[in-house]
Amino acid sequence: MPRWEPDGVGRLQAAAIELFAEQGFERTTVAEITQRAGLTERTFFNHFADKREVLFGPGTELQREIVAREIAACPDTLAPLDAVVRGLQVAADTMFEARRDAVVRRREIIDANPELQERELAKRAALTDVIAAALGTRGTDPDTALLVARAGVVVQQTAMQRWIQSAEKRHLRELLSDALLSLRTIAAHTPDQGAVASGSRARKPQTGLAPL
Amino acid sequence: MPRWEPDGVGRLQAAAIELFAEQGFERTTVAEITQRAGLTERTFFNHFADKREVLFGPGTELQREIVAREIAACPDTLAPLDAVVRGLQVAADTMFEARRDAVVRRREIIDANPELQERELAKRAALTDVIAAALGTRGTDPDTALLVARAGVVVQQTAMQRWIQSAEKRHLRELLSDALLSLRTIAAHTPDQGAVASGSRARKPQTGLAPL
Repeated sequence: MPRWEPDGVGRLQAAAIELFAEQGFERTTVAEITQRAGLTERTFFNHFADKREVLFGPGTELQREIVAREIAACPDTLAPLDAVVRGLQVAADTMFEARRDAVVRRREIIDANPELQERELAKRAALTDVIAAALGTRGTDPDTALLVARAGVVVQQTAMQRWIQSAEKRHLRELLSDALLSLRTIAAHTPDQGAVASGSRARKPQTGLAPL
Repeated sequence: MPRWEPDGVGRLQAAAIELFAEQGFERTTVAEITQRAGLTERTFFNHFADKREVLFGPGTELQREIVAREIAACPDTLAPLDAVVRGLQVAADTMFEARRDAVVRRREIIDANPELQERELAKRAALTDVIAAALGTRGTDPDTALLVARAGVVVQQTAMQRWIQSAEKRHLRELLSDALLSLRTIAAHTPDQGAVASGSRARKPQTGLAPL
């Protein structure tokens, strides 16, 4: 693992985001990024495995570390999903709240590039795994831990998406609480209890269709 | 759009899954797949954009179509999340239930290859979008629709993961109902209501960390 160098990493990321915004992700080279940051390619590859990672590197690792640590530190009386949202809130305060502009610019770059979107989805899956493992250390059984982790990541996505909207003035922490409440609401809303009962509307499986 | 040819597509997919299982995804060429299926490369590329798509092609599109159609057809009295799970159940009956072995083999191939995992995550994101759009046609507001769609995809993942386990004998339809119940349970479980309240444990945002 490379040593954590906030200045080097931060300069490389800032330069990369500028260049990606100016001329597109595809057309920007690592050489251009290091040149603008005033650093060598060697330094770049000490910190990032490839060009995509400059948007996902130490920051996403740090987020996972913070969330996992906070979940593990939560009192046992806290429900698993509450512990997860608490962890996400601490990460929000520590990592996101003060740098909304950078997060928005990063978002725009990722949205414009399918390759970056795939990498982001993979990072989200990694966050899910880390959350599930942290819940495991609190004694949550593996199946429940994975389900809660997935629900927590849905809360994170929902809150983050709202937070980066220009009209939104609330803190990310508050939007995380809101998204959790929304999830509770849509999960609890069951006007027609029997409708999804197992076996209802069962159909004979058909053949001749592609396996999925 | 290529014409739907169940035989051709099915033979190519069966051949591909055999070869991927025998010699790995990376080392299998499109030429080998078409040779084993007794078809031409031209036929292959009529149906699939690339080698990865043979595991994700018309099947995932069909799943999206079925789920969207069922959601749109659900009575208005049904809660959005129930409508989504009903749609997923119809797709389960139609597409998955009769071909568990193929689904398990496909799963093993994807789990062994990060490139395939990224593609799968992208397909899951596409399913989320389709579900959200279908809920929109029922009058669900866009924010709620997206949240419900994400929750529905979590239910699908959870049920599917259990269904492919060899010891699991229940139908996927039933496991979808179970997973929905589990989500309701973990969302409702709030032993310490105030714990995630907005503003609690708020920390001053720190600086010097990487934008994420």
